[in-house]
Parts: sequence; structure tokens; C-alpha cells
Amino acid sequence: MKPVQYAVIGLGRFGKSLAKELMNLGYEVLGIDKEEEAVDEMADKLTHCVVADTTDEEVLKSLGIRNFDCAIVAIGDDIQSSIMTAIMLKDLGVRQVVAKAMSELHGKVLTKIGVDRIIYPERDMGVRVAHQLVSPNLLDFIELSPEYTLVELTVPKHLSGKSLKNLDLRARYGCSVVAINKQKKVLIAPVADDILYEDDIMVVIGTNKQVAAFEREVSRE
Amino acid sequence: MKPVQYAVIGLGRFGKSLAKELMNLGYEVLGIDKEEEAVDEMADKLTHCVVADTTDEEVLKSLGIRNFDCAIVAIGDDIQSSIMTAIMLKDLGVRQVVAKAMSELHGKVLTKIGVDRIIYPERDMGVRVAHQLVSPNLLDFIELSPEYTLVELTVPKHLSGKSLKNLDLRARYGCSVVAINKQKKVLIAPVADDILYEDDIMVVIGTNKQVAAFEREVSRE
Amino acid sequence: MKPVQYAVIGLGRFGKSLAKELMNLGYEVLGIDKEEEAVDEMADKLTHCVVADTTDEEVLKSLGIRNFDCAIVAIGDDIQSSIMTAIMLKDLGVRQVVAKAMSELHGKVLTKIGVDRIIYPERDMGVRVAHQLVSPNLLDFIELSPEYTLVELTVPKHLSGKSLKNLDLRARYGCSVVAINKQKKVLIAPVADDILYEDDIMVVIGTNKQVAAFEREVSRE
Amino acid sequence: MKPVQYAVIGLGRFGKSLAKELMNLGYEVLGIDKEEEAVDEMADKLTHCVVADTTDEEVLKSLGIRNFDCAIVAIGDDIQSSIMTAIMLKDLGVRQVVAKAMSELHGKVLTKIGVDRIIYPERDMGVRVAHQLVSPNLLDFIELSPEYTLVELTVPKHLSGKSLKNLDLRARYGCSVVAINKQKKVLIAPVADDILYEDDIMVVIGTNKQVAAFEREVSRE
Amino acid sequence: MKPVQYAVIGLGRFGKSLAKELMNLGYEVLGIDKEEEAVDEMADKLTHCVVADTTDEEVLKSLGIRNFDCAIVAIGDDIQSSIMTAIMLKDLGVRQVVAKAMSELHGKVLTKIGVDRIIYPERDMGVRVAHQLVSPNLLDFIELSPEYTLVELTVPKHLSGKSLKNLDLRARYGCSVVAINKQKKVLIAPVADDILYEDDIMVVIGTNKQVAAFEREVSRE
Amino acid sequence: MKPVQYAVIGLGRFGKSLAKELMNLGYEVLGIDKEEEAVDEMADKLTHCVVADTTDEEVLKSLGIRNFDCAIVAIGDDIQSSIMTAIMLKDLGVRQVVAKAMSELHGKVLTKIGVDRIIYPERDMGVRVAHQLVSPNLLDFIELSPEYTLVELTVPKHLSGKSLKNLDLRARYGCSVVAINKQKKVLIAPVADDILYEDDIMVVIGTNKQVAAFEREVSRE
Amino acid sequence: MKPVQYAVIGLGRFGKSLAKELMNLGYEVLGIDKEEEAVDEMADKLTHCVVADTTDEEVLKSLGIRNFDCAIVAIGDDIQSSIMTAIMLKDLGVRQVVAKAMSELHGKVLTKIGVDRIIYPERDMGVRVAHQLVSPNLLDFIELSPEYTLVELTVPKHLSGKSLKNLDLRARYGCSVVAINKQKKVLIAPVADDILYEDDIMVVIGTNKQVAAFEREVSRE
Amino acid sequence: MKPVQYAVIGLGRFGKSLAKELMNLGYEVLGIDKEEEAVDEMADKLTHCVVADTTDEEVLKSLGIRNFDCAIVAIGDDIQSSIMTAIMLKDLGVRQVVAKAMSELHGKVLTKIGVDRIIYPERDMGVRVAHQLVSPNLLDFIELSPEYTLVELTVPKHLSGKSLKNLDLRARYGCSVVAINKQKKVLIAPVADDILYEDDIMVVIGTNKQVAAFEREVSRE
Repeated sequence: MKPVQYAVIGLGRFGKSLAKELMNLGYEVLGIDKEEEAVDEMADKLTHCVVADTTDEEVLKSLGIRNFDCAIVAIGDDIQSSIMTAIMLKDLGVRQVVAKAMSELHGKVLTKIGVDRIIYPERDMGVRVAHQLVSPNLLDFIELSPEYTLVELTVPKHLSGKSLKNLDLRARYGCSVVAINKQKKVLIAPVADDILYEDDIMVVIGTNKQVAAFEREVSRE
Repeated sequence: MKPVQYAVIGLGRFGKSLAKELMNLGYEVLGIDKEEEAVDEMADKLTHCVVADTTDEEVLKSLGIRNFDCAIVAIGDDIQSSIMTAIMLKDLGVRQVVAKAMSELHGKVLTKIGVDRIIYPERDMGVRVAHQLVSPNLLDFIELSPEYTLVELTVPKHLSGKSLKNLDLRARYGCSVVAINKQKKVLIAPVADDILYEDDIMVVIGTNKQVAAFEREVSRE
Repeated sequence: MKPVQYAVIGLGRFGKSLAKELMNLGYEVLGIDKEEEAVDEMADKLTHCVVADTTDEEVLKSLGIRNFDCAIVAIGDDIQSSIMTAIMLKDLGVRQVVAKAMSELHGKVLTKIGVDRIIYPERDMGVRVAHQLVSPNLLDFIELSPEYTLVELTVPKHLSGKSLKNLDLRARYGCSVVAINKQKKVLIAPVADDILYEDDIMVVIGTNKQVAAFEREVSRE
Repeated sequence: MKPVQYAVIGLGRFGKSLAKELMNLGYEVLGIDKEEEAVDEMADKLTHCVVADTTDEEVLKSLGIRNFDCAIVAIGDDIQSSIMTAIMLKDLGVRQVVAKAMSELHGKVLTKIGVDRIIYPERDMGVRVAHQLVSPNLLDFIELSPEYTLVELTVPKHLSGKSLKNLDLRARYGCSVVAINKQKKVLIAPVADDILYEDDIMVVIGTNKQVAAFEREVSRE
Repeated sequence: MKPVQYAVIGLGRFGKSLAKELMNLGYEVLGIDKEEEAVDEMADKLTHCVVADTTDEEVLKSLGIRNFDCAIVAIGDDIQSSIMTAIMLKDLGVRQVVAKAMSELHGKVLTKIGVDRIIYPERDMGVRVAHQLVSPNLLDFIELSPEYTLVELTVPKHLSGKSLKNLDLRARYGCSVVAINKQKKVLIAPVADDILYEDDIMVVIGTNKQVAAFEREVSRE
Repeated sequence: MKPVQYAVIGLGRFGKSLAKELMNLGYEVLGIDKEEEAVDEMADKLTHCVVADTTDEEVLKSLGIRNFDCAIVAIGDDIQSSIMTAIMLKDLGVRQVVAKAMSELHGKVLTKIGVDRIIYPERDMGVRVAHQLVSPNLLDFIELSPEYTLVELTVPKHLSGKSLKNLDLRARYGCSVVAINKQKKVLIAPVADDILYEDDIMVVIGTNKQVAAFEREVSRE
Repeated sequence: MKPVQYAVIGLGRFGKSLAKELMNLGYEVLGIDKEEEAVDEMADKLTHCVVADTTDEEVLKSLGIRNFDCAIVAIGDDIQSSIMTAIMLKDLGVRQVVAKAMSELHGKVLTKIGVDRIIYPERDMGVRVAHQLVSPNLLDFIELSPEYTLVELTVPKHLSGKSLKNLDLRARYGCSVVAINKQKKVLIAPVADDILYEDDIMVVIGTNKQVAAFEREVSRE
Repeated sequence: MKPVQYAVIGLGRFGKSLAKELMNLGYEVLGIDKEEEAVDEMADKLTHCVVADTTDEEVLKSLGIRNFDCAIVAIGDDIQSSIMTAIMLKDLGVRQVVAKAMSELHGKVLTKIGVDRIIYPERDMGVRVAHQLVSPNLLDFIELSPEYTLVELTVPKHLSGKSLKNLDLRARYGCSVVAINKQKKVLIAPVADDILYEDDIMVVIGTNKQVAAFEREVSRE
């Protein structure tokens, strides 16, 4: 079975990071940018790296782009190039085309021309950072449903030494601790006698409301 | 107790999204950009919105920026403005200054001049999207530690109707299901007889290796 | 019954000519361009004429564009604006959206986003002029089918005074004269005794081959 | 007898289309543009294709332009280059010089310096498209005289199955059907019993008024 | 009898100097330039002075340009504006249109569109200065015919005190002194006994060859 | 005796014309311009022609400029380059430095830094053309002194056939005819019986007033 | 006696600093810059501050510049403006004109046009900083003559507590201590028993060689 | 002991002067600039000279910059490059990093990122020149303390021939003459009978007030 191959078009900050992580995860990655400088920087970090104008169909063909399993259009600020590249990738028969959108409207055009998945990195990151800012102990979170959230919180000083029983989360906040990262090891499905220490990290599930109430308690100084 | 106040400087895609989410979360937000167009767009979405050049100390003072609890420097592509704005915010005594960095080096300068928190939105989003691409059922994930990961996966067709017992995750992959989102309700700490159906979403914890092996099983068609 | 209303977006050479002809034909026309100069020039030639950026949805709404029967996107050289404007017109529910395409690829995107009719003015005019150049007596032509053509030819000096019978077109070239424009009047379905004079204009139908052969005869000096 | 040779100067959308059609019609074509990119695109589509600045007399001479039967100045947006090129072509003795004009004034200058034929592609196409828009069944048309028009119309559903006799065009509208394109074959000078079917295309001649009245009938739903 | 009126279009160095000299000579002058700065500088030196774009026919009409006896197109470096302005001036019926040409080709276009007189100031001045440089005593000259020249020379020290008889120009060089400017008065048709003094200026006529020989004698030290 | 050598710096319209005329007059000319295009055009018209930046002293030295008899700074529109080049030419010991000035102030700076002769081509040509415009028969003129002028006039139709006696210039206008150019030959110091014919050219001397009065007579129709 | 008045033209970093120090020293200062931003910044720091283009003689006159005792042309990077402004200042009769030069050549032109004093701030500061860098204890220095230097040095730790007698400078290095700045007071012409302490500052005179030798001793660790 | 090595980054007017003086003082200097022109000019004046972009860490490493004793960031006007270069120099372990600051804020950032010494050449030179302007005989000065100054003054005509005793500086002004530069030799610690002559240079120490009073006396005419 041949390895899955990704083509990342546009090696700006987002594209570079994406391409490098795909390499880390063990895949083959072709990086493409129209600026030589961007390509030079990534040349020895990706499987292949070429300078090319992807709005030219002949160029795309000559790169054998149709043989790639997935192409990601991560073009920075040029909406026209993004659209033109994406429509040609679909035309050439690339199985999965993913594209970064700069606005809702851009995303709508990409959807209409058949792009399989639209990504809004800055918008999504803005949302994520907002949550982290308002809750200083919040490290990360997953919105499980419109109602339920899973959060990763650092244990604050004033909870250090307390057992989950002492905390009595479920009774007082209605939410559950599903894991505790104790630096050295991770306790999955911790029990009532497990004790929290400062700088442990706990993973808590509950409704948005419950979790928010608990976060406020945690962040209280 | 007066509400917490945020100033978001730079209303590009990231800044706009961040500012709007902070509003959604119930905080007061002052949006600042040097372009009138960006400010016009956000005028009725934020508490206040002004056109201002934040590299001018007098301007920052006149905005009463020192009274804000937190200022986020979300300036897009002008590293010099980002640094100059950040150092003045610290000088003026803003309690928490957060800044978006465009490169490692930029981040290092921001750290040296005392910025409290550095954010790399595009880089982080690149990593996140890479994981989602290589594992189609992966909705989201949290890296609990360098070794442990928590992932949110859609249940594929070929696992539909199976109980957790059938799946026997812990024995076969070493990882645990800590929650199942069954559209209507969320099962926290599900038991062995709970049955998975297509389109349920499960939250699984394990070491990176264990989780990766299970993801491959899930994505197999 | 209210008069049909057209909106012409982009008042370059093509848009201006189109808008003016629609006025001549008795319709109401709203002209829109983002440059004040273009709007000033057309202000007293169209029903209404406004300076507006049609890539801004609020602007389009405020113009009441959804009430127009047909909107023509005649934007000159900015493919991105053309696409963005067109998709919003469709979204706003304009019944018929027509757009000028700058290339095949542009046309393909416009089709995908739902534009009802794509026009390639320069390309079509190039074809038309080519035919006129190679056949000096050719005034105009219509391609009836891939095989049949109808041409409008000036009668050259060396055919002056000949009757259709003399010419014996059908026997010698296989094509038919369906009308003769004799300056003062137009003979429809002329008969064998009708005589051609220099500077009469005749309308001839036949297969491409037949017509081409006759054209060469006509152009022979 | 040596084949007729055309030189097309300016390979924009109009020039490209014109040059290609001349090739299709079997002539030799030299394409000239000052941009390498435009020339590269057409290199294998025309007899010869060169990068050259046609405002330099030495360059024009070295191309042997005086030996061409006809030169078309299809320069896009640079009025000065258009005029300078045209006057040198006339001076060098090119038999027929045709030029695209960007405005009435430009056309007037071209006429004064002796250009044999002035073309206004965008203006003419604007007029043509306007007619097609207001009459949805209209495919094409020829203005035979200020009074008479010949139009090519698709037969609408509500006329399907009717014979020309039923329609009685001449009596009711005063205009005549001179040909019917029935997909497979073309009926020239059709008779009263010929029956129209949906999607047939008919060619009708009459005065402007008569034809307009009939078009309205045809377009009525 | 109303005074003669001149319009000078383009107030660069040449246009300014021309307009001011026409004022000195007692005529009415309208100065026109598209740059406000140029117009401000000349505002109080000419009869009228306006900022206007002369490539816009409406503007030319509104200036009443058709009533001027002579319009001089002294536009500096924009050949297109020069041609467009000139053709409209002729169209509007200005009796005499004079234009500055930047090249032979530009001059040819201006001639073709009917400009009455073409001026090449830099070219003509280059020729004039060349003559003055090579002959240090030469102040000015007029080429009477391809063969004959009239020169204005300062009398050098080594000829001071000599009478025309001593000099014996006609015998030795074949040329004649037609005037001597003796500071205080001008001797027209001087006689053989008239004596030259240093710094007198003499006007000499002869064939090019004769004059050149005499100039060399005069310039000899 | 080695031939006199000129260096012309700046090959714009004035510089080109000057350099070519110096060649015509039989001198050696080195042309210098910083634009390759200008140098290419003059390469085969001058003794030598080089691309060089004359504001760089090393460059000037390497051209051996100090050995030239005269250097003319004919730089078009860059006052700084003109001044910098001129001061270095003087420093390097070029015997005679001539420079074109763009304004009175520029001329004053050039004088202060030691330039030997300042030329104002456009200003002087403006004056010259003004005189020709107001007096249609005037071909050329020399201002002999603030009071006396010598003019070259075409003989108008209404004077054709008249002898100088008939004209009686000296009595009626106070001015004298010093030469008549009769196409085939030039009459120097013509006598009273010499007859003027249309298109002859006469050279007349007198005070400004006398000459102006006669010019008006000549131009009268 | 009216206070001395300075005009500083060009409010870049050098001009601003100069103007402010003149104010500190008690003089009246008019600041002039062509950029509004620069003028705004200095408006309340100088006696007067105006936006003006000093290459326009009328502007200079209207500022009454001729009444100033001294005008400093501190224009940053525009050599032409610097020269043009300076020559007009001299022409207008300003008693002392000082100008900053950007290069030797620029300085030479300024000298030729009569500027009274030429300043090379960056060049001079480069020299000064070089000396301070190579001798870490060197605070400042004055070159008294090509041979003699006066330096201001901090007393290093290893000399602390030593009397001038101990040091025996004159015998060992040939140079003399003319003053010691002991924070609280300055000892002028110190005697042999005066003792140096760390962080005292001593002023030493000697030949370049003697002083350099002593500096090395002082900087030795 | 290997010679001390300096790297000067940015070869503008300040950097060039600094680098050249370091060479004069006998050190090894590497000059770096991103413009080839600047490097060419200095190539034969410094030990080494390279074109390099110092904001690229790899470039800095490849230049072996970490082995230099001192690096001076003399970058002209690009604050971002200045900061980025400086932080990398510190990171790479350069022992002493000196940087030119364009503003107080810039200087503050440089300090925060660890730059060892900040220089404000234009600001300091502005102050220095201000002092020289207001006191025409002042050649140079050192501010010994906020209170004490040492000045270098030319002896004016009206003091010529006077002995220090006559002058009685200490009694009348409170300040002391510590040296007299008498062209041929320098008198250190001059005595009461030493006589001043015009154009001698004297070095005087005193409080600011005393010195200012004496300067006024000296400058009095």
C-alpha cells in the first residue's frame, strides 16, 4: 500500500505549519508556493518542494497533482488564486480538496465549486484564544455538542491537596473529572480518593453552564 | 464588581473573531485598528470600536488603555507595530498583554519586552488541521501530555451497533472511552453495555500510539 | 405590468455599450461602477447610475438589487470582484444573472456558482472579425448549425447587372439567396429574374463549404 | 499563389481569439505582443509568434511586416502604442491596416492617420448582447438596413407542432421565415406545411417593428 | 478689431516661456495645465489661467476654445494627451493649431490629424547650441538656405582696430558684413572704412563654407 | 592637431540633437546616458556612446573625461544629478563645462559651482516660437541688441513682383533689406531694382519698432 | 537687544534635536518641515513651527526668513532640496547659513554656493562612537590638534584608592590630569595627593600616543 | 593575543564613518549591508565586507558573527530589522552588542532585548551642533557633570596679545584655562604669563554658568 500523499499549496504561516505536521505524522508532502523564498525555507523539511504558479493548469498537470490523495489550498491573501487553483484541482480529479477561506463569502464560493472542506484558521483560532483568555486555567477545550463541553484545566494552588471527594464536583457543579494528568502519568477515570496537586491538569466534562461555573471557581484567587 | 474589559488591537481575521467571541462570552471589548474600513465593519459588534495608530503613545493614553484588564495585540503583518504597541502597553501598566507572533523570532522579542502570553494562531491551526486531515473521523483533540492524547471521533458505520464490550478498546488498543455524545444526550463515563451508533461521537483517551492505532481502525473502510 | 429592469455592474466599454442599448430598446437600466468617473459619464444616459462597491453585500442590498429582473456583471478585469458580485446576486435572489468571463476558467467558476449565462465578448468578437477580414464582402454572418451558415454579402462590381438566374447559385454553389437589400427596399425570397446591382446586399444560406466557395467567387477581382 | 498572411499585434483576449480564428480559417498568422507571457501562450497555436515592441520602427521592419497582406492592431489599453504602431504600418506600406479603437476619439485619430478599418469590439458586443438579453429566444441577428432585420430564434414550446401555415407570420406580423434549422438538416425557403418543433431554430426576416412584435409573441410564456 | 487670442495648453518650461513671451508681445493668452501647481505659478502672469484636462471634449468646449485664434499644444511628455487634445481642437474649429512634437513619429501623427504647424523645440535648440559651442564667437545664426548662412559674431581682440578694408572679407573669404552692432548704434550696410573694435558684433553672410572659414579665423587666438 | 572632443551627458531630445549636430559639424562626440535604451539608439550615430552614472566620480574618471575639451551636461529632469555631475567635471579639470538649466534657480547654482555656460533650451525656444506665431511670415530672427532686430521673412503674395524701390522700405519703415534668398541664389546687399517674388525670403534689419511695423504690413492679407 | 533667532529647516532626528537644544539654550527657534506630521510633533516645543516647502522662494520670503540671524538646513535625504533651499537663503540675505551635508560632494556644492558652515553629523558621530567603543572607559574626547587629545575617562576599579602621585602619569605616560570629576565636586588642576576612586571621572591631556597608552592601561582588567 | 574584531551592520553614513574610524584605530572590521552598492563602496576600506541580510539567522551564523568581540547594529531606517538583528546577535552569544536607536521607544525595545549600549547619533549631534552655533568660538565641549563643562574655544582677535594674568579668568568668570593649543605646541596647565594669540585654541573648565559668561565675552565683537 503506497503512502498517502498530500499537496500543500501556499506556504505561508498556516501552510508551513500544516505541511510540517503532516511530515511529523509520517506522510509524504509536496509543498508548492509561487515565491522562491518560501520554497527555499521549506526545501529540506518536506518530501518535495517546488516553486509554481498553481493558477496555470499546465503547471498543475506537470506536477502530477491528480495523483495526490489530498490537496490543501492554503493560499494566503489572494482570493482569486485560491478559487482558480481549487476549481482546477477538482477538475483534474484530485480526490479530496481542502481550502482555507478568508471570509464567509469566499467559503461559499469554494463550496459551490466543489471544495470538500473549508477551513477558517484565523476565525477558529480567534474563538479558541478568546476562551483561553477569559479562563486563565483553561488550557484547551472541545465543544462536544452545543450543550456539552470538555475542558482541560490546570489545578490551581487553592485546590492543591484536595481529593476529588473533597471537591465533590458532580454534586456541586454537575460535572465530572474524566482524567488527571499528573506530569509523570495520566489517571484515566480517576476515583474519589485521587488527590489533586498544583500544576496537575484535569480533564472535566459537563454542560457549558456547569463547566463555566467550575472554571470560575478554579480561576478564583 | 466592574466587568472585565478587553482591548483587541488589530481587527484582521484573527482579531475580529477573537473580539466577537469575547463579546459572546459576555465581556466588554474595545476594538482598535488603524484602518477605517476594519473599524466600520466591527462598529456595531463590539462595545467600542476606534480608528487609532497604536504606535503613538499619546493615542494609547487618550484611549485610557491603562484601565483595561487585558490587551491583545492582534496586529496582522507589521512586526514593528506589534513590538512598539506591545512595549508601550507594558509601560503604561496594562496588567495582561497578549500578542500574536508571526515567527519564533518575533515571539522571542515579545517575550523579552515583557509580553505575558504569545500566541501563534496560524502555526497552531496548521498543526490542528493536519491531525484532522490524516484521520477523517477525528473531530478534535487535546494533547494532554507529550505522551497522552484525548480525541473526539465520529463513530463509523462499521462500528454501529457494537457495544463498548464488543469493541474491547482497553484490551485491544489500551485506550478508554470517557464519553459518548449521542446527539440527544452525552454519556459520561459510559459502561460496557453502552452501544455505539453511526454518527455518535466518542471521546477516547490513551497514549499517542494507542490512540493512533484505534483511529486507524475507526477510519478503515 | 411594470417595465423590465436591468442592472449593469461595471461600466467599462462593454458595460456602457450594453447599458445604452438596453435604454435604446426601451428598458429601465441601473448602471453601477466603483469609479466615480465612469458613473459621471453615464449619469444622464441611464435611468439611474450609482458609484458602489458591489463586493459588499450591504451595498447590494441597499440598492434593492433583488428586485431587478436581470443583473449583468460586466466587470472589466477584476476576476475576484466578478465572482464575489455574482455569487451575492444569486444569493440575494436576482432571477437572472449574466456575467462576462475573462477566460474559460473564469467562466467555469461562474457556471459553478450558478450564473445563468456566461458571455465572452472579446473572444466572440475576435471570431466575428476574423470572418469579416478574410472575406472582404462579408458584412455579417450567423452560424445556423455547425454545418450551415447564413451570410450577408455586398454585391461586387463584377456581378452587377446579373440576374439570380444568370448567377445560378444553387446549381453552381449549392446555396440560396434568401433576401436582397436594395437600399430602398428589401426583397425577401427574391425570384430568378431579380437583378443584382453593385452595392446591393444579399443574404445567402448554404453549407459552410458552399458559402465559402461563393464568397471566394464574390471577392475575386 | 502564396497564402494570405495576417499579422495580429496585441494578443489580449480579442487579439488571441481573432488570431486563432484566422488560423482555423486556413490562413498564416504572425502574432506579436510585447509581453512574453502572452506570446508563450500562443506560440504553438499560430504560424509564428514573437515578442516585440511595435512602436519601434526598426523592430517592425525586421519582422518583414511590409510583406503582410493585412495587419490588425489589437492593442488592448495603450492608445499611444496603438496610434504609433498603426501610423508606422501605413508608412511601411502594409496594404490593409485594421485597428481596434477604445473610444470614438481614438477611432477618429486612427481614421485620420489612414487606418483602413476601425473596429469597436466591446461596443459592438454590448449592443449584440443587449438584444439577446431582452429577447430570450433570440440567438443572433443581422441588421440588414436601418429598417430591416434578420433574426435567428429558437422555437418555443408553445409553438411546437404548429405549421408555418398555422402561424401565418406574414399575415399577422408581416415577416417571413427564410430557413428552419431542424437539428439534422436545414430547410431553406420552407413551405407552408413545414412544421415547427420545440428547439428548432428559425430564421425570420422583416422590418424591425414586425420582427420585434413576433419576438414578443415567441418569448411569451 | 478684437485682440488676437492664444491658448497655450501645457505649462511646462517651453509652454510657460512661450505664453509669457506672447504676453510681452501684447497678446491675450489663456494658459491651461492639468496640474494646479503649474497654473498657480502662472496665474498672475497670463490673461487667464485654468486647471483643466484638455483630453475631455466637454472641458475644451466649456473653455470656449473654439473662439481662440490659435491654440498651442505644448504638452510635455504625454504623447497620447497631445494627440487627443490636438484632434479635438481641430474638430472644434480652432483656426490655427500648433503642437510641440516629441519625436518624428509624433510629428507625423500630428500632421496627419491636421495640426497646422509642428514644433520640435529640444531638437532645434540642440542644433542651435551645437553651432554656438563649436564657434565660441558665434552668438546666433540663421540658415538662409541649405547653402547660405547668416551669422552674428563678436569681434575678437585680434581684429580690434581693423577696418573692413583691412579685413578684406569678400576677397579672402567670399562673405560680406551686412551690419555691425557697435553697442551704441547699429551700422547697417557698413562701408570699407568702418572700423571694428573688440566686443562689436558683426553680422556676416556667405555660403556655409565661406562663413565657416571666417569663423575659424575669428576664433583663432 | 588632434580634433576637438565633446562629451554630451544626457541623451534626451535636446542632448541627442546637440550630439548629432556636433557630429555633423565634424567633431568627435562621446555620448553618455544612464539608460541603456538611450545609448543603444545613439550607438552608431556618435564616435562613442556609453551607459554610465555620471554622479559617480570613479565612473567619470574611468571615462577619461578630463581629456575632453568641452562637456555638456544635458541631463533632462534630475537637478541633483545635473549639479553633482557638473561640479565633478569642474573638479576633474574639464576646460569648458556647459549645462542645461531647468529653472533660474538651477541656473544660479550651476553658475556658483563654476559652470562656464548655462543654457535654457525650452525657455529660449518658447520665446523664439512666440515671435514666429505672432508674425506668420517670420521664419527666424536675431536680436542684435535690445533695440535692433534682424528678421528672415517670406515674401507674401501681395508683394510679389514689386521691386525694392517700389517697396521703399527705408523711407516707409526705416528698415533695410540686407539679403534676398531667391531659391536658386542669394542676393547679398540687393539693389533698388531687385524684384521680390512670392516665396522669396528676405532678410531685413531695423529697430524693433520698425521691423514690427513692416512685419504687420507683410502679414496683412 | 532682540533675542537671537534661529530657523531650523528639516525636522528629522538631527533637526529636532538641534532645534530643541537651541530652545533649551534660551533662543527663539522657528521649525520648518514639509511634512505636517513632523511639524505637529514639534509644535509645542519650539517658538514657531510651520509646514512649508522651502524650495519655493515665495514661501521663504513669506516666512520672513531674511530677518533670522541664522538658518540651519537640516534637510534629511533630499540633496536637491538642501541645495535649492541653501542658495535661496543666501540670496535672501540670511546672515549665517549652516547646512547638513550628506556626502563630501554635497558639502562641496554647499561650500561653492556660499553656505557658511557645513556639518556632517553622521560622519562625525561615527568617528566619535568608534573611539568610545575601542576604549570602554572613554566617555568623551576632544581632538585639540592632529597630535594632541583631551580625554574624559572613568576611573576603573584597579586604580581606585590610588593618588595621582602613585599613578605618576606624567612620568610613565607623559600625559597630565587636568581635572577630576568626583561626583559631588570637580577638582580643577588636581594635585599629586588627590586620590582617585572608582567611578570618578578624570580629564587627561597628552599626545595621541601617550593618551592611547594610558587608555589601554585604564581598560586593562 | 588576537586583534579585537568588530562587525558593523548597516553601512549608511553613520555606519561607514564608524567602520572606517575603527580601521584607522587599528582594528579588524567586518562591514555588512544588504545593499550591494554600499558594500562595493566600502570593499577596499575594511578588512572584510559582505552583502547579507542580517535578519536571517542562518546568514548571521555563516558569517561566524559569534566570534566577534563587538557587533554594532547601525541599520539606518528599518526599526524591525534593527530589532531582529540585535536579538539574534545576543542569542548567538556576541559579547557586546551596540545599536543605533531611531527613537526613545526603539531604544527602550533594544534595551529590553539585552542590547549593551544604545546610541542616538543624530540626537546627540543635534545637541552638540546647537552649542557650537550659539557660541561661534566654541569648537567642541565635554559635559563633565550636570554642572561642569569643559570647552575648547578659539582665541578671538580682541584677546590677542593678552596674558592669562591680564584676562584674570578665575577672578572674573570663575573658570580656568587648562591647556592652550598654540598651533606648534600644546601648553598644558599654562601659567599666568602665557600669552594668548589670535587663532590659539584654549581649553577652559568651569561651571556651566561661568563658562557661558566667558563664552559671551569671547564672542563679543
